[in-house]
Amino acid sequence: MNEGPVISVLGLGLLGASFCMELEGKYRRAGWSRNPENRRKAMEKGVVEFTVDTPEEAFAAGDIIVLCLPIPVIMEYIRKYASYMKPGAVLTDIGSVKGVIEQAALENPGVHFIGSHPMAGTEKNGFDNAFKGLYHNADVFVVPPPGAEEADIVKVEEMWQKIGTRTTRIDSKNHDELVAGTSHVPHILASATTLGVLDVPEEERITRFSGCATGFRDSSRVASSSPVMWREIVEQNTTAVLTALTELRKHLDEFENMVRNGDFDGFEKKFAKGKELRDQWIRWKKY
Amino acid sequence: MNEGPVISVLGLGLLGASFCMELEGKYRRAGWSRNPENRRKAMEKGVVEFTVDTPEEAFAAGDIIVLCLPIPVIMEYIRKYASYMKPGAVLTDIGSVKGVIEQAALENPGVHFIGSHPMAGTEKNGFDNAFKGLYHNADVFVVPPPGAEEADIVKVEEMWQKIGTRTTRIDSKNHDELVAGTSHVPHILASATTLGVLDVPEEERITRFSGCATGFRDSSRVASSSPVMWREIVEQNTTAVLTALTELRKHLDEFENMVRNGDFDGFEKKFAKGKELRDQWIRWKKY
Repeated sequence: MNEGPVISVLGLGLLGASFCMELEGKYRRAGWSRNPENRRKAMEKGVVEFTVDTPEEAFAAGDIIVLCLPIPVIMEYIRKYASYMKPGAVLTDIGSVKGVIEQAALENPGVHFIGSHPMAGTEKNGFDNAFKGLYHNADVFVVPPPGAEEADIVKVEEMWQKIGTRTTRIDSKNHDELVAGTSHVPHILASATTLGVLDVPEEERITRFSGCATGFRDSSRVASSSPVMWREIVEQNTTAVLTALTELRKHLDEFENMVRNGDFDGFEKKFAKGKELRDQWIRWKKY
Repeated sequence: MNEGPVISVLGLGLLGASFCMELEGKYRRAGWSRNPENRRKAMEKGVVEFTVDTPEEAFAAGDIIVLCLPIPVIMEYIRKYASYMKPGAVLTDIGSVKGVIEQAALENPGVHFIGSHPMAGTEKNGFDNAFKGLYHNADVFVVPPPGAEEADIVKVEEMWQKIGTRTTRIDSKNHDELVAGTSHVPHILASATTLGVLDVPEEERITRFSGCATGFRDSSRVASSSPVMWREIVEQNTTAVLTALTELRKHLDEFENMVRNGDFDGFEKKFAKGKELRDQWIRWKKY
């Protein structure tokens, strides 16, 4: 494949490298990573078609540039390197918070920027955990800043659709509020659940371990995610996270009051409502 | 296999039928279900060796009787049918709360009763969802009431060990406090998480659906469990559930305050502590 548009991917961690694997046969693929070892491995394993040596070159190499980097680095690189993009190229990223990244892009009105957020990932990270299939069945939010050009939006949407994901357009504010509830707060809860159960003196801990089974395993899975990454995400989305926590607490308080007051008919009805909504979603998502 | 002790299993739902599948080739297996259709299917599929027609016969048939029934039914059957047990037989059960069940057994001091709680299950239920392997790698709490005979305890422990589970002895009070944290509260949280995200007007819900991915799927999985079953479990363990909720809230409040006050170094450190504890458990459990 020596013709057609080049996708230039900066960052070859879990999301970046898995993304490159999906692009194979669909787009030409340039790669760059802050870690030279990942660049070498990506070439060796055919994850990218060619690598470049600097972020400047990576920005210059693509018809679409995809920043698969931590949020603060995405913001920094947009500010530093967007001017290296070739005419007609579009810049996008995979950051979990879109408002602050969009702000960084809007500082330079000449930049063709469209935010993306693929709802995909695991509790692991890094090149070695990347795999083809991470994006299968994923929903991707495409987040155009105010005044974005339709042609740019479509170019980014088509890229995601070509690798088999489903795209939804949304603005950055609604996006950030939404994922605060669906993703950011569940990460905090998973960590609080783990700590509530296992943060006990070591001699008690083994008995606690025996009491943790598949329910706990799944409820707490994302507590094993990267602390630095989740700090960066929550730090850039505090208002929405606090609002989503309030929403969660409303339901938690209701359950707790029902238990305290012995209202188990109410408890059963509320739990049944949660089951109905989750089962609806599972059918829709086709998991 | 026409000799050796008979395990008589009352209740052929997810846990009962899956348990019978594990017993095959290790014990003789009698089965009874409140649902005649499940008795027929269990015979047809070789899940049991023979079925009986009444709970009285089921209590009389076993060297070990295992009640795989909802908690209120377990309590009712112990009271009604324990007198049908043959001399030397031991009664056990798989209920998720041990205090109230033990109380029911202690009302008749002649009954040889040892509680069990296998930490196994899925969000599904019923005979048709049963499968061999449900108990693989499971931990089982063996919960002797005060004054229990060592020989009875060992008989029950051996049964669980023979199907490949790991047993831990614990008293009912410590058991109920422990699983309130590791299992009961996580079910309430999963439901609250689901409701916090999806209990919105229908026109908004599809966008919310798009924002729910594998993290949400796992965090909320047990919200799809049976509302009746979870009502019965929580109803029989209110004090411990309220205590475990307080423990959870302590950590949730700390996270929330860190977000509100912008203490993201603290946030990262606390999240890292949760990750460390969960990763320790995963290594111990060998998931």
